Amino acid sequence: VRIIVAERAVLAGVRVVDLTTLLPGPYCTQLLADLGAEVIKVERPDGGDPARTLVPATFAAVNRGKRSVTLDLRQDADRARLYALVRTADVFIEGFRPGVAARLGASYEQLAALNDRLIYCSLSGYGQSGPARDLPGHDLNYLGVVGALDAPDEPGTPPRHWASVQMADMAGALFAANAILAALLRRALDPAGGAGAYLDVSLAGAALSLMSSRLSAARLLGDDLTARLLRGGGYRAFVGSDGRAFTVGAIEDAFWRRLCIAIGRPDLADDPAWATFAQRTRGAAQLDALLAAEFAGRPRDAWIALLRAADVPVGPVNAPSEVEHDPFVTASGLLLADDAGEAPLRAVRFPARMPGLAIPPDAPDTRRAPALGADNALLLGAADPPETGT
Amino acid sequence: VRIIVAERAVLAGVRVVDLTTLLPGPYCTQLLADLGAEVIKVERPDGGDPARTLVPATFAAVNRGKRSVTLDLRQDADRARLYALVRTADVFIEGFRPGVAARLGASYEQLAALNDRLIYCSLSGYGQSGPARDLPGHDLNYLGVVGALDAPDEPGTPPRHWASVQMADMAGALFAANAILAALLRRALDPAGGAGAYLDVSLAGAALSLMSSRLSAARLLGDDLTARLLRGGGYRAFVGSDGRAFTVGAIEDAFWRRLCIAIGRPDLADDPAWATFAQRTRGAAQLDALLAAEFAGRPRDAWIALLRAADVPVGPVNAPSEVEHDPFVTASGLLLADDAGEAPLRAVRFPARMPGLAIPPDAPDTRRAPALGADNALLLGAADPPETGT
Repeated sequence: VRIIVAERAVLAGVRVVDLTTLLPGPYCTQLLADLGAEVIKVERPDGGDPARTLVPATFAAVNRGKRSVTLDLRQDADRARLYALVRTADVFIEGFRPGVAARLGASYEQLAALNDRLIYCSLSGYGQSGPARDLPGHDLNYLGVVGALDAPDEPGTPPRHWASVQMADMAGALFAANAILAALLRRALDPAGGAGAYLDVSLAGAALSLMSSRLSAARLLGDDLTARLLRGGGYRAFVGSDGRAFTVGAIEDAFWRRLCIAIGRPDLADDPAWATFAQRTRGAAQLDALLAAEFAGRPRDAWIALLRAADVPVGPVNAPSEVEHDPFVTASGLLLADDAGEAPLRAVRFPARMPGLAIPPDAPDTRRAPALGADNALLLGAADPPETGT
Repeated sequence: VRIIVAERAVLAGVRVVDLTTLLPGPYCTQLLADLGAEVIKVERPDGGDPARTLVPATFAAVNRGKRSVTLDLRQDADRARLYALVRTADVFIEGFRPGVAARLGASYEQLAALNDRLIYCSLSGYGQSGPARDLPGHDLNYLGVVGALDAPDEPGTPPRHWASVQMADMAGALFAANAILAALLRRALDPAGGAGAYLDVSLAGAALSLMSSRLSAARLLGDDLTARLLRGGGYRAFVGSDGRAFTVGAIEDAFWRRLCIAIGRPDLADDPAWATFAQRTRGAAQLDALLAAEFAGRPRDAWIALLRAADVPVGPVNAPSEVEHDPFVTASGLLLADDAGEAPLRAVRFPARMPGLAIPPDAPDTRRAPALGADNALLLGAADPPETGT
C-alpha cells in the first residue's frame, strides 16, 4: 500500500471569488475553505454581508478563514479591481436574483472573457430559467413547492414546517459544492489545460432532490398514507419521568421486538396487531400513547442506557446549547467552540475524517471570520485601474 | 472564450463498487451515477438490497442506471470476485456498522492492498471512532443528538420532528459525494499518478454541520429564543378560503412592509410593535392569528398572485402527488416520472444545470434500476477463482 504523504488540503492553491451573502453561498464556500481553498469575500463597502449585523453568530460560523475585500461594483474602478481578482481565480460564485450579476458587470459571459478557465456558479432560489426565476423566496417557500412540508395534524390547519434547519438552503449549498468540485475535477483531467464551466444551481431544485424517496413513495402509496410515514409508531421522541426527551427509531421488526422486550412488554412484540412497520405506522396514535405511558416511568438516561444495551436505536434530544457537551460531538472533533471573539463561535468543520484532504483540525488561523475589508491592502493594492487593464 | 466541447459526463470512466443499501449510500452513488460514473451495486444473492422489497419506489428512485451483481462475501470464491472488481475500481463505498466490512474481507487495508489508488468511503451513523461508533441509529436519532429537533409546542411534551425528509441521511450522502469528488480531484492532480484515500463520513456529523447556523444563534440568544426562530411571525404556512395552503416568507422588514400593504393592512406595516423580525418572532402567536384571519378571506391562488405581484416571498404548499405538476418543477426538467415499469418512478436528477458535467437529461438508459444480479454475466464472468488470484 502506497503511503499517503499529502501535506496540504486538496483545494490548496484554489482561489474562490465569492459574491454571496447570508447563509447558502457562504456555507458552500465554507466547505471549500475547509478543503483548503482561498475564499475571497467581495463585500459592499457599506456594511458588507448583511449577516455581519443581522445574524453575527451565523456570520462567524460560516465565514471562517476567508479573506474580505470591499468593492462598490457600481464604480468602474472597483469593477476593474474585481476583474483583476477574477483573472487570478479558479472559482466564482454569486447568489443574486437572475440578471443582477450582469448589471454589476459580473455575468458568466463577462467574466469568462477575462478568464476562460473560470468555474462560475450561480446559486439562486429557482434557477436561471423557467417561470419562477425572478421570484423572491426563502427556505420555507422552496420546501412548500417540492412537497416537503409535513401534512397538518388536523384538516384545514396549516401544514407543519421544521424550523431548526434551513434545509433547502443547506442542500443547495451542498449541491453547489459538489458541482464546483466536479467542474474542478473535469478541468484537472483535461489534457488541453481545462476549460471553465457555468453551473446553475437552485435551492428549490436541491430541495426537490431531497424528496426523491418521498415522491416515489407517494406515487405508490398515495399522499395520505405517505404523510404518516416516519411520524410515529415507535419512530419518534418520547419524554422520560424527569421531563427530558429522547428519540426511539424502531423501524425494523427486529428493533421493534427488542424494544418491546427491553421495556418489559413482550406481549406487544407478540401482538399481531403491531407485527409490521406498516401496521405500527397506521396505528401510531394508539401505539405511541401506549409507549409514552411506559416511558413516563423512568428518567431519560435510564431508558437510553437500557435501550442501548438492547441494541435499539435510541439517543438524547439535545437542546442546541447541550450539543457541545454530547459525547459523540466532543469525540468527533467537528465542533469549534470559541467565546474569545466579539461574537461567540460555534462552528462545524467539514464533517468527514479524510487525512490530507481537508484543513487539519489544529490549524489555528482558520477559526475566525475576517473583518470587513481586512484584505483590501493585500489583495486590491496591485489591481490595474480600468484604463490599463488587459 | 474557449468553447466547451466535453462530450461526456465528468465521471465517465470512473468505476464505483457500492456495497451500500437502503437510502443514504444509494442516494450518494446515484449522484455519482448522474455525473457519469459506472456504479456497480454488489448485493446479497438472497434478495439483494432490502429496499428492493421494503420500499420499491425508493429503490427505483435512487438506483437508476446502476449495474447489479450478486455476491455472497462469506464465500471465498465470491470474495475473490469482489477483489477482481476492486482491482478495476476507482471508488469503493460501504455503509455497514464499523467492523462489518473487515469481517467480510473488505476493510480499507484489505482492499488498498489490492489497489493502492482506491478511494474508499465508509458511510456510517456515528463514524468509525468515538463512543457512539457501534450504536445502531436512524435519521431521527442523529437529529436529536445534534440539537436539530424542534422544541415542543408545550413544555413536557415531546419535541417535534420533521417526517418528510430524512435530513441526516440525505446530508450524509451529499457530504460523502463531496468527499469522494475531493479525493478524485486530489488523485487527478497528483503528478505521481495519485494515491487512494480513506474517507470516514458519518450521518450524525453531517447533521451537525447543517446546524452550524443554529448552534451559533443559540450561543448568542439562548435556547428558548432560538427555538422560536423561523417558526412564525410572517414566516409560515397559511390556509386560504378554499382550504389550500401556501407559504409566506416575510423575514426582512422590506418584505414585511410589502406584505402588509398588499393584503390591505398598511396599519400593520406602520405599527411599531411589529417593526423588526425579532419583534414579529416574539409575538408570532398573536401576529400569525391576525394574518391567518386575513388570509381566510380569499382562495390560495388569489393570494399567491397578489403577493407575487407585490414581490413578497410566497408559494404553494404542494402535496407530494402535486409536485410533478408544479410549473417550477416541470420547467426545471429535474423530475423523472415514468409509470411503465413494475414500480412507478419519481426520481430527481442531479439538481444543477451544468453542460458537459452530468449525464444529459435525454439519456434514455439511465432511468431504471437494475434487476438483482442483472450484470453477473457481464462483470463476474472473468473473475479469478481464489486459488489463481494474484
